[in-house]
Amino acid sequence: MTDFSVFSRGAEGRIVPPPPPAPRFEDELPDRWGYGDTRLFLNDRGNIEVTGNRYPISGHELPDFLPWMEGQLSHRIDPQDPCLSHYPPSIPGARSCPAFMADIQKVFPADGLSTDAKVRLRHGHGHTQYEIYSIKHGSLPRVPDLVAWPTEEEHVVALVEAAKRHDVCVIPFGGGTSVSQALLCPKDESRPIVSVDMRRMNRILWIDPVSRMACIQAGAVGGHIAKALQPYGLTMGHEPDSIEFSTLGGWIATHASGMKKNRYGNIEDIVLDMRVVTANGMLERTSVHPRESVGCDPRLFMFGSEGSMGIVTSAVVKLTKLPEVQKYGSLLFHDFDNGVAFMYDLSQCAVYPASVRLMDNVQFQFGAALKPRPAGGPSLKSKLEKAIVLGPLGFDKDKMVACTMVFEGTAEEVRSQEAEVYRRAKKYGGFKAGEENGRRGYMMTYCIAYIRDLAMDNYILAESFETSVPWSQVLALCSNVKQRLREEHKKHNLPGTPFLSCRVTQIYETGVCVYFYYAFHFKGVENPSQVYSEIEDAAREEVLKQGGSLSHHHGVGKLRQRFLPEVKSQVALDFVERTRETLDPSRIFGCRNQAAVPEPAHSP
Amino acid sequence: MTDFSVFSRGAEGRIVPPPPPAPRFEDELPDRWGYGDTRLFLNDRGNIEVTGNRYPISGHELPDFLPWMEGQLSHRIDPQDPCLSHYPPSIPGARSCPAFMADIQKVFPADGLSTDAKVRLRHGHGHTQYEIYSIKHGSLPRVPDLVAWPTEEEHVVALVEAAKRHDVCVIPFGGGTSVSQALLCPKDESRPIVSVDMRRMNRILWIDPVSRMACIQAGAVGGHIAKALQPYGLTMGHEPDSIEFSTLGGWIATHASGMKKNRYGNIEDIVLDMRVVTANGMLERTSVHPRESVGCDPRLFMFGSEGSMGIVTSAVVKLTKLPEVQKYGSLLFHDFDNGVAFMYDLSQCAVYPASVRLMDNVQFQFGAALKPRPAGGPSLKSKLEKAIVLGPLGFDKDKMVACTMVFEGTAEEVRSQEAEVYRRAKKYGGFKAGEENGRRGYMMTYCIAYIRDLAMDNYILAESFETSVPWSQVLALCSNVKQRLREEHKKHNLPGTPFLSCRVTQIYETGVCVYFYYAFHFKGVENPSQVYSEIEDAAREEVLKQGGSLSHHHGVGKLRQRFLPEVKSQVALDFVERTRETLDPSRIFGCRNQAAVPEPAHSP
Repeated sequence: MTDFSVFSRGAEGRIVPPPPPAPRFEDELPDRWGYGDTRLFLNDRGNIEVTGNRYPISGHELPDFLPWMEGQLSHRIDPQDPCLSHYPPSIPGARSCPAFMADIQKVFPADGLSTDAKVRLRHGHGHTQYEIYSIKHGSLPRVPDLVAWPTEEEHVVALVEAAKRHDVCVIPFGGGTSVSQALLCPKDESRPIVSVDMRRMNRILWIDPVSRMACIQAGAVGGHIAKALQPYGLTMGHEPDSIEFSTLGGWIATHASGMKKNRYGNIEDIVLDMRVVTANGMLERTSVHPRESVGCDPRLFMFGSEGSMGIVTSAVVKLTKLPEVQKYGSLLFHDFDNGVAFMYDLSQCAVYPASVRLMDNVQFQFGAALKPRPAGGPSLKSKLEKAIVLGPLGFDKDKMVACTMVFEGTAEEVRSQEAEVYRRAKKYGGFKAGEENGRRGYMMTYCIAYIRDLAMDNYILAESFETSVPWSQVLALCSNVKQRLREEHKKHNLPGTPFLSCRVTQIYETGVCVYFYYAFHFKGVENPSQVYSEIEDAAREEVLKQGGSLSHHHGVGKLRQRFLPEVKSQVALDFVERTRETLDPSRIFGCRNQAAVPEPAHSP
Repeated sequence: MTDFSVFSRGAEGRIVPPPPPAPRFEDELPDRWGYGDTRLFLNDRGNIEVTGNRYPISGHELPDFLPWMEGQLSHRIDPQDPCLSHYPPSIPGARSCPAFMADIQKVFPADGLSTDAKVRLRHGHGHTQYEIYSIKHGSLPRVPDLVAWPTEEEHVVALVEAAKRHDVCVIPFGGGTSVSQALLCPKDESRPIVSVDMRRMNRILWIDPVSRMACIQAGAVGGHIAKALQPYGLTMGHEPDSIEFSTLGGWIATHASGMKKNRYGNIEDIVLDMRVVTANGMLERTSVHPRESVGCDPRLFMFGSEGSMGIVTSAVVKLTKLPEVQKYGSLLFHDFDNGVAFMYDLSQCAVYPASVRLMDNVQFQFGAALKPRPAGGPSLKSKLEKAIVLGPLGFDKDKMVACTMVFEGTAEEVRSQEAEVYRRAKKYGGFKAGEENGRRGYMMTYCIAYIRDLAMDNYILAESFETSVPWSQVLALCSNVKQRLREEHKKHNLPGTPFLSCRVTQIYETGVCVYFYYAFHFKGVENPSQVYSEIEDAAREEVLKQGGSLSHHHGVGKLRQRFLPEVKSQVALDFVERTRETLDPSRIFGCRNQAAVPEPAHSP
């Protein structure tokens, strides 16, 4: 018998989950990506070894990777000659602002404020190669002077009020995983800078299990949110690559996209309401609705605002029932063009798998090179499979590409999606490559950033950057951007050959998100990080020329700010700038003169 | 063989369709809803008769409707005593602004400007009962002084520039179907007012058939867009009730929702880019992308801006392939609660039908009463069906409700959705009531507004208003709002009993959109339109109290403006107001003092 009263209970039917344990951030490394238990290094045998047990490659030796990478870069990597990190760099002293401090000390607990040098350093950068290279091999000219950890919205309100009173600059901080240099402090900022680390505001304030909504504090980390909702059979479904570290507030500020957006939507599809502490006061609503038309919505301005409009303290998000069935899948195609054509075909379905991603040939080889060597050598089955794929099936190991998929839903939904996917794949010569390869491909996403640090330890600078592009330009964009990177590599007289790869990570009816990966060996290169930035800028120019966007979901930050006038009219830029001025006249959030020519990434 | 070059062609692969014929607006009536060929009237036999051939009821007599409606209202309707319209009312003279006129005459063709009284009148209102009652039985204190029909974006730019120079107020006009009183001119507006009728800017500028996007001028009417895209096998899929008359620009300005949003999305999901003429210049971008993260997006401010931020001149929209299969369906449930529970269950699928709507019992009866009487009486089959439903199946004619559905997609998708729908319906005692009832239910949507005019001709004031509400409040909201309407009806000493009905027109994972319908017989009632407005306001108060939104897709306009402070914080209101100030300092778009207490709808 249906209990109809659930459709009348409203707020009375809400669940208030117990507060989570205090978050432990000491597990995270200050100078490298991710958890301290996971370390990739070249061992004495010259093999890559991975510590810990979190990921598919954890606890393994990866003997194929180094030789393969050396081939890509046309350069020998000498395990006896690591590129030693000089972390921590010299850290600028903290400017004091006793009046401000006195004001907020009335509100914040003693352990909620810190001027520790390393803590301030960690809050002054995100995770671009430039930032990580700077803290290991250079320095940062400016970092926050104070770090504050609010635990209540009132703390944030009081801090912002005090910042206004005492002319302090405020930078919100989520997971610190930004890849847009949004967290870098402008070197000429003369006001004291306070970094507001939101991660102690990590409670789920309520769940409406009937309407499938939850109100979550902005500092909650993705992984914790998933864990906290799981007992109620619910999920947000938002899974960015950084889900282990990034926060709800950070997702809103960067206009994030998750790997399963096909099923759960991007962040703007998931967030129904938010509370924002602005310099003018509280941006808030009295109730939350599935969708509405009530005039211009200032909350929409928070998506992509990158901390420049205020601090999001909590948001009401849409939830989905945990899927009955979760299944992985993978496909091989003879070349990238066929893979793209398949994904295009798939984008015409009403529903496609939660995640569908296409690796180009280099990335496919990269993934294969990262496989641990099984004890006793490869199994007969895997040898046979390989022989069949490369033999009778006619796959060329230097052309073939792979597509990985995650299906989620009811048993019927997953069955129907699988049928649709494999039927369409056949048209493009697709070959089913099994569930395990699909699962591994999905999980490996979490390892990519660790590999960036391993690379840097061995004189390799590596970085990814992404864009979105309509279907009618996707192949031209992929090949022209790679070509441009090859030319730039040459033009800069860099050693060896460039590591170049791309993948299609999201599909839409109208186009795709493409990631590019570029790496080079930098031993003997002067200012390698600056060279990388110059080449990345050139690649971005090419992306824009080929009809790509400035960013699909990483955001603009300081890294891509100089390109804004190329993609938006002056009226559009002024619109945002003037909105900032009116909302925050003394510009406590961000630079006083945001419209000025931005600082180039490569001039620390 | 796949032609991979389509993924590299970009703008070169775009199709430029031939311009459409000049739009004919003379088919539309100035004083009633819709087309002149469709007239509902009480004939000499005392039966309702419908002229024309556009709709399911066209060309028919509807003998059951009048007696049924009399029963609902507990009031006799006398065909010999119609409520005669006094249209046209006296129309305020046009204020002249010779300098402005001289400027724009340099740009506009002679037939692109009019000061004709009836034309100005028509551009001074939308389609709420208050507005239509005013033009038939009262007057409008202020209407535009000039109507301009731009055919090119340059015309709009020149007009806005001239308006700034000469202090003229500008109101954009789409289909004139607004139901928020957004088109009403403030009576104390002392500046000349120009209404910018966008409907001659109706071209599809290009179609990218590979990326499935089209750039469409903002004045294109829904029906025309559908017709123009059809030869290319594509559709926008946006089908609001007003699709025959409303425009793309109007949809953006009102933040519209279409009946098939489950498959195609709401307007904000469909629009990828837009060009806007603001008082500061052109809001525009250099290219269009499937999705991006490039900072705060001022274009998002246009959704729901209701003409107050500028004039949208064109938009790039997402297209979908025309569905292989389109199929209707319908279900009967024993009562409203079971119908709602079924829709809730359905909202947990990954895909539900393009449209699913649930009528309450009164609306179900209303639909049945609108059926033409077949020649020779009802068929044996239909008599039998009725007998079975009311007999062995135990449906109570005063409780049963109906759900209508539209399925669209590939054959496999439609099959799978149907299976899912009927499987879930069984759990709630759902009875399959056939395709024909589903199709009729969908098509009848287009007739509702015509019935409003028939009602007014016979001393009945009728109107609908909508909201959105989370699932956990939907039943309480529906019953409490109806109860409040009953109480208000009594409190105002209105004759007979109120006609009261609701329907759930949209479902979301988190809630629904609900429409309410309220009508009363007004013969002998003083200021009936004002009384209606007062009662509607009371109902809106109740909606807000029950957790409903101010509007799901109709918008705020002047009708609901007074409620804004109840739903948004002062910071949110100021944010929008200040943004307006900076974007349009002399406020050529809309009132100089928008923040002032709004004019009540019921004080003409």
